[in-house]
Amino acid sequence: MRCEIVAIGTELLLGQIVDTNSSWMGERLALAGIDSHFQVKVGDNQARIVDTIRHALSRSDAVILCGGLGPTQDDITREAIAEVMDTELVRDHAMGDRIRRGFEARGRRFTENNLRQADCPVGASFIPQMPGTAPGLVCPVGERVIYAVPGVPFEMREMMEGTILPDLQRRAGVTAVIKSRVLKSWGESESRLAELLEERIAALDRTGNPTIAFQASGIEGLKIRVTAKAADAAAADALIAEEEANVRAIVGDAIFATDEQTMESVVLDLLRERGHSLAVAESVTGGLVGARLTAVPGASDVFRGAVVSYASEVKFDVLGVPEGPVVSTDAAKAMALGVRERLGADVGIATTGVAGPAKQEGHPPGTVFLGLAYRDYTEALRVRLPGDRRRVREYAVISVLNLLRLRISNSSRSPELR
Amino acid sequence: MRCEIVAIGTELLLGQIVDTNSSWMGERLALAGIDSHFQVKVGDNQARIVDTIRHALSRSDAVILCGGLGPTQDDITREAIAEVMDTELVRDHAMGDRIRRGFEARGRRFTENNLRQADCPVGASFIPQMPGTAPGLVCPVGERVIYAVPGVPFEMREMMEGTILPDLQRRAGVTAVIKSRVLKSWGESESRLAELLEERIAALDRTGNPTIAFQASGIEGLKIRVTAKAADAAAADALIAEEEANVRAIVGDAIFATDEQTMESVVLDLLRERGHSLAVAESVTGGLVGARLTAVPGASDVFRGAVVSYASEVKFDVLGVPEGPVVSTDAAKAMALGVRERLGADVGIATTGVAGPAKQEGHPPGTVFLGLAYRDYTEALRVRLPGDRRRVREYAVISVLNLLRLRISNSSRSPELR
Repeated sequence: MRCEIVAIGTELLLGQIVDTNSSWMGERLALAGIDSHFQVKVGDNQARIVDTIRHALSRSDAVILCGGLGPTQDDITREAIAEVMDTELVRDHAMGDRIRRGFEARGRRFTENNLRQADCPVGASFIPQMPGTAPGLVCPVGERVIYAVPGVPFEMREMMEGTILPDLQRRAGVTAVIKSRVLKSWGESESRLAELLEERIAALDRTGNPTIAFQASGIEGLKIRVTAKAADAAAADALIAEEEANVRAIVGDAIFATDEQTMESVVLDLLRERGHSLAVAESVTGGLVGARLTAVPGASDVFRGAVVSYASEVKFDVLGVPEGPVVSTDAAKAMALGVRERLGADVGIATTGVAGPAKQEGHPPGTVFLGLAYRDYTEALRVRLPGDRRRVREYAVISVLNLLRLRISNSSRSPELR
Repeated sequence: MRCEIVAIGTELLLGQIVDTNSSWMGERLALAGIDSHFQVKVGDNQARIVDTIRHALSRSDAVILCGGLGPTQDDITREAIAEVMDTELVRDHAMGDRIRRGFEARGRRFTENNLRQADCPVGASFIPQMPGTAPGLVCPVGERVIYAVPGVPFEMREMMEGTILPDLQRRAGVTAVIKSRVLKSWGESESRLAELLEERIAALDRTGNPTIAFQASGIEGLKIRVTAKAADAAAADALIAEEEANVRAIVGDAIFATDEQTMESVVLDLLRERGHSLAVAESVTGGLVGARLTAVPGASDVFRGAVVSYASEVKFDVLGVPEGPVVSTDAAKAMALGVRERLGADVGIATTGVAGPAKQEGHPPGTVFLGLAYRDYTEALRVRLPGDRRRVREYAVISVLNLLRLRISNSSRSPELR
């Protein structure tokens, strides 16, 4: 079963919008066991859209068109499909009423041109999911099929999950359910993870189900994806849970989160469970730790605040760091302790270091000290982080949050934090 | 002159990497006056790469291949080009030596497989720019041409600017130089800008040179791109400068930056010129203002630090905000004044508000108060920001920096800040 993706819109060709939809769809197709060998971007030109669809159908079983389903004169995906199907567009009045009611429900002004979205090629049908005001289409072409979805990401995703992926699997004769879980890791290199999991992967290769795959995700660490195929969702979940336990037993606490969890959401949850509040002292990260923590709704239960002590005098005056070198173990400890006391929190963490481009206090860019304080217990860790200014800062954020995670969840190193 | 872009790599189809290279290339082609009607992604499969190149050459004058030029067995772009050209690959020993020396100069271990990168199809030539270790190729196919560049963005960009764009323009018979400048604006809607500039755009439409185009860039505001064509770069620059002055006279101080400048770099430069230091008090933005300012190298000249007063008690205890409502004009002023005094800075700015999803102190999400303090002068501004939690926070950051920019650069409102 082969399925191509065609993203439609002149703004994509001009680089005004980056086509992230196709990437997301490509990933979902692969996880559903559907091959996707080509992805094409084409502008708002009917002849070229028609040529692209015909070429795709000549070598694939299905094609997903994304974009060009709106109400304006530029939106010509429906017309292009009708031309490929050699048929007419017919306005569906029930859909027209639904679109009109959708506008009213959102308090948006309805204009007649929106009824163009109710046009449907003869022989095609609307996709049941319709989270926005533009319906998607399923359009059979002999044994093959064209799907059309809007370019608005959440609308596209709901239609993919609800209709297109199940329909493609049905057409491919896939009766099994394929599910996957992402285990997110921090602190081990890809080659080290591959080495640790070598035997496990070899064992899985013999059965072919479940499978394990690695995926680098830059500043967010390395992902380990466990994918399982089974007769139903419960059986697939059970296979995944068993394999997740195997992987965790081997890789240990380098795994910090699963699926939609992030390092910051995990740290906040751990602190919340223990009833601990958090304060942050930031130098090299300049506010990024606070920014990431407060991106999580409900962070205010746990996070009291931060002091961004960029100038040395702010470290001395506000945080009570003793005068002396500020890129050091002692400064990191004093910052963590100072912010914990100053902001009245149970736990303090701190970052100080050199993001670059210039050296500081004799340290090269990438040298970062992470501090942690809980009551009178303090510790600091020196790390060497790779990359340019931006990457050093981002790595420092996830590193200090990871240090805190390990100390809260792991009893062996800092029992005071339990 | 038509040029297609083909991005090569299975990881692109699987959604493991988002193809931002094609977007950048599409933008540069449009600016150079070259049409690009199709952009394709294809995996590391020689037959499919060959088919894609042939199809592209059947309808376009040129094709740029991006990716698959590395040293591994997956990197088969060279082989695919040779097949399309119906010729052989020949190893270029001078290039081999250059690649070897490149590894030595970077202190990286050289392995023999890297010499594959010195293979060149008969009749093709290497692109002179070579900032990495993989050379690019120019491959004539009759009157048409294939270019190949590595997928590493900075390598690709240098080859595009240095060889491919000038070569395409020469082939298209474009003798003129096309240059452009981006004017970044904040605070006016696209329809308002279009209304303000309507007469100017109509006047330019009559001559066709220079041109003005709008481009929405989300949380960074609206861009106005001025593009001019002239016999040489100096003449194009003069046309742009004249039109920039016209646009600035109409739009006024909604324009905050040009080209590579950002809101934060402009604010830091303005403060540096005046010898003013800055401190920030953040509640709703949680550290994002500090994070953006410190992303700019050299921020430490100006930026002393920030207090992220997320909990109300931190506002009261650390910043000296009087107890009472914390999402208010008074709180925003007191936060700005408090952080200015506490961190010993000339200027203080502050954000407090509701990012959502829940209401706070009776205010709906999107309600944000911006504070500013200089010596004893304080002011606060209430704004209503659209979007979800993430967008409200990002808009709040740029809004408070923009308030500071206007007050520093504009004498009419706050003369104390000059």
